[in-house]
Amino acid sequence: MAKKSSIVQPKRDAKPRKLSERDSRTLSKLVGLADDVTKKALGGKEPKLDIPTRTKSNTIWNRKRGILEMGDGVAERELFNLNQAKQFMQTMLHASTIKDLIEADKTSSLRGVFYKAKHTVAGTKENTFDDQAESDPILEDLEVTLGSLREELHVFAENRGAMVGNITLVDKGDEIDCRRMGSGGYALPSIVEPDIIQFKKCEAKFVLHVEKGTVWNRFNEDRFWEKNNCILTHGAGQPPRGCRRLLQRLSHELKLPIICLLDCDPWGHYIYSVIKQGSISLAFESSRLAIPDAKFLGIRAKDYDECELSDAVKIDLSDNDIKRAKEIAAYPWFEGHKQWQREIEHMLKNGFKMEVEALITKDISYVTEEYVPERLKDKDWLE
Amino acid sequence: MAKKSSIVQPKRDAKPRKLSERDSRTLSKLVGLADDVTKKALGGKEPKLDIPTRTKSNTIWNRKRGILEMGDGVAERELFNLNQAKQFMQTMLHASTIKDLIEADKTSSLRGVFYKAKHTVAGTKENTFDDQAESDPILEDLEVTLGSLREELHVFAENRGAMVGNITLVDKGDEIDCRRMGSGGYALPSIVEPDIIQFKKCEAKFVLHVEKGTVWNRFNEDRFWEKNNCILTHGAGQPPRGCRRLLQRLSHELKLPIICLLDCDPWGHYIYSVIKQGSISLAFESSRLAIPDAKFLGIRAKDYDECELSDAVKIDLSDNDIKRAKEIAAYPWFEGHKQWQREIEHMLKNGFKMEVEALITKDISYVTEEYVPERLKDKDWLE
Repeated sequence: MAKKSSIVQPKRDAKPRKLSERDSRTLSKLVGLADDVTKKALGGKEPKLDIPTRTKSNTIWNRKRGILEMGDGVAERELFNLNQAKQFMQTMLHASTIKDLIEADKTSSLRGVFYKAKHTVAGTKENTFDDQAESDPILEDLEVTLGSLREELHVFAENRGAMVGNITLVDKGDEIDCRRMGSGGYALPSIVEPDIIQFKKCEAKFVLHVEKGTVWNRFNEDRFWEKNNCILTHGAGQPPRGCRRLLQRLSHELKLPIICLLDCDPWGHYIYSVIKQGSISLAFESSRLAIPDAKFLGIRAKDYDECELSDAVKIDLSDNDIKRAKEIAAYPWFEGHKQWQREIEHMLKNGFKMEVEALITKDISYVTEEYVPERLKDKDWLE
Repeated sequence: MAKKSSIVQPKRDAKPRKLSERDSRTLSKLVGLADDVTKKALGGKEPKLDIPTRTKSNTIWNRKRGILEMGDGVAERELFNLNQAKQFMQTMLHASTIKDLIEADKTSSLRGVFYKAKHTVAGTKENTFDDQAESDPILEDLEVTLGSLREELHVFAENRGAMVGNITLVDKGDEIDCRRMGSGGYALPSIVEPDIIQFKKCEAKFVLHVEKGTVWNRFNEDRFWEKNNCILTHGAGQPPRGCRRLLQRLSHELKLPIICLLDCDPWGHYIYSVIKQGSISLAFESSRLAIPDAKFLGIRAKDYDECELSDAVKIDLSDNDIKRAKEIAAYPWFEGHKQWQREIEHMLKNGFKMEVEALITKDISYVTEEYVPERLKDKDWLE
């Protein structure tokens, strides 16, 4: 536990740097946490932490705000408890790493933080961490305990997704004109907080978010964003936090509607649900990630008839799909929502799912030139 | 088979457009293929195709060129053969789709091509394709039969990977200054052929290619490419074709050394092998994808001792790792290579693998500020 002291004692060789407002705030929370532990220890009291509980039972559906929230349940994490001592030590180790990261103005991957803390405790055969699966939840504990986003703790996950469209942004001082990003686009970073990314000039009237890079390519190649004055994003499947956070900032700060084009299957519905209301495992971050106004443009269960699609688009629902569809229909935020109940029922009645890419059976650019523009014009979407 | 005719008869409503030299070449090969089939049919002969064989036994290790190549084995695909008639029809269907794509100057994903051709044959219950796993190999058949890259057939896979560094390129007419791409970078497109991507201005002296986006973030955050005058790329794991092709163009056209920083494990060695020599399944494309001069900078088996790493970096080799390592050591292009034989032996003797991210145990920026610069200076790499 030798490293623990580094939390409260400033490093002798640390170069002082001017911290951003965000970093100062996070650092003072970290120091507060450490001070509290030290104070208890020096006062002869048991060092312990109150860790908010990240479970389904402590997740609340806030109907008014339209997002999932974490309840106020907390669990104590005590040093003098055989079952909790290791986790207590792990929490302190990660807190120390994060302090170092903030002071050095560097960021690290989840895996990097794991490696940083992984070692054999001196004089024992006990490892601080055995694998990353032990490490990631401890970081989430710190997020909720400090009330800081992972991004504010200088930790990132794999970055995925890309963007083009009628917006200029500034990323670490570099001006990125998303109107001139060719066929590749601007790769979305993992940390998109306002001190890193600023929006500079935006004519776009909305954001079209699509599920996959392959679909995004079609829209970019047809210059959909130019013809329809919008921003075009994808998250390479389930969008990672960086992508969700950027969409939320575009929604909140620039007041742009976020329009989602996803597959007509339980996975597409789930992606939409996470973008809109947040997820149970990250409920504590919904207010910084969820976009309650996000809209689901398609693919819709009615499209097989309405767009006169051929049988080629049908993919039979598996037993697991049917089970997932019913689970999603029972989510509190879908439960009271007549339109969504009808949508899921319709898909189940169809007995098949449909992918965005299936619209190519009509014509290669049917999706960009007819389907999406017409739905947008009619405001024909699910909320 | 009604669609077959569309290969040789021009569409009445097709808008003529000026084809690029590349597209004209591909189209004339396609028309040649179709003409041959028609000629045989009209001459009362059996329509058939010669499809080069994409198997291990038809893969040749060209020691002199340092790449894997496809041999000259071919298999006939006949229309009047019960076992081959369906594949013959599938080949014609995809050829027809590709002709449409080229004429429309559009590209499609592999999945899009599958959907485009998927339908029930009129008057029967037979589907042209049942799933994408049937469709992708037919496209590869066409690639080898026509001698055209998939990219030249206007077909792409999922795009992955990003780039920053001392280079300006032009992507579909947009100038991309990779020196000013912030923390996110330029997202690598799937098709990077010279008519889409041109290199404009490049001061960089080499390319550092890393395996993962998380490692790339560390190098970009530390502005490694600026301090070391290079280009920095990643391929989000096994680099997709777009990334490999771009690296090859940087190597061949700009004469930049491609230096790889990958994990010290069989997966890292395999990624290097594919970048350098090509893969068996894509042997027919090696001359346009493989980079025989690529170098493997690390992580090396000797690094545990040489860099005085802690035990935290060790990840035990699994039985499968050991099996894979021996398979890779027996590849003809590693077999006669003393340095690589020693490297793999050393890793097996260590009994553990090491990831690039493990270097964080030394210091957060050890990898960017010491490890890589020192190895570069000493030219300490495997070829």
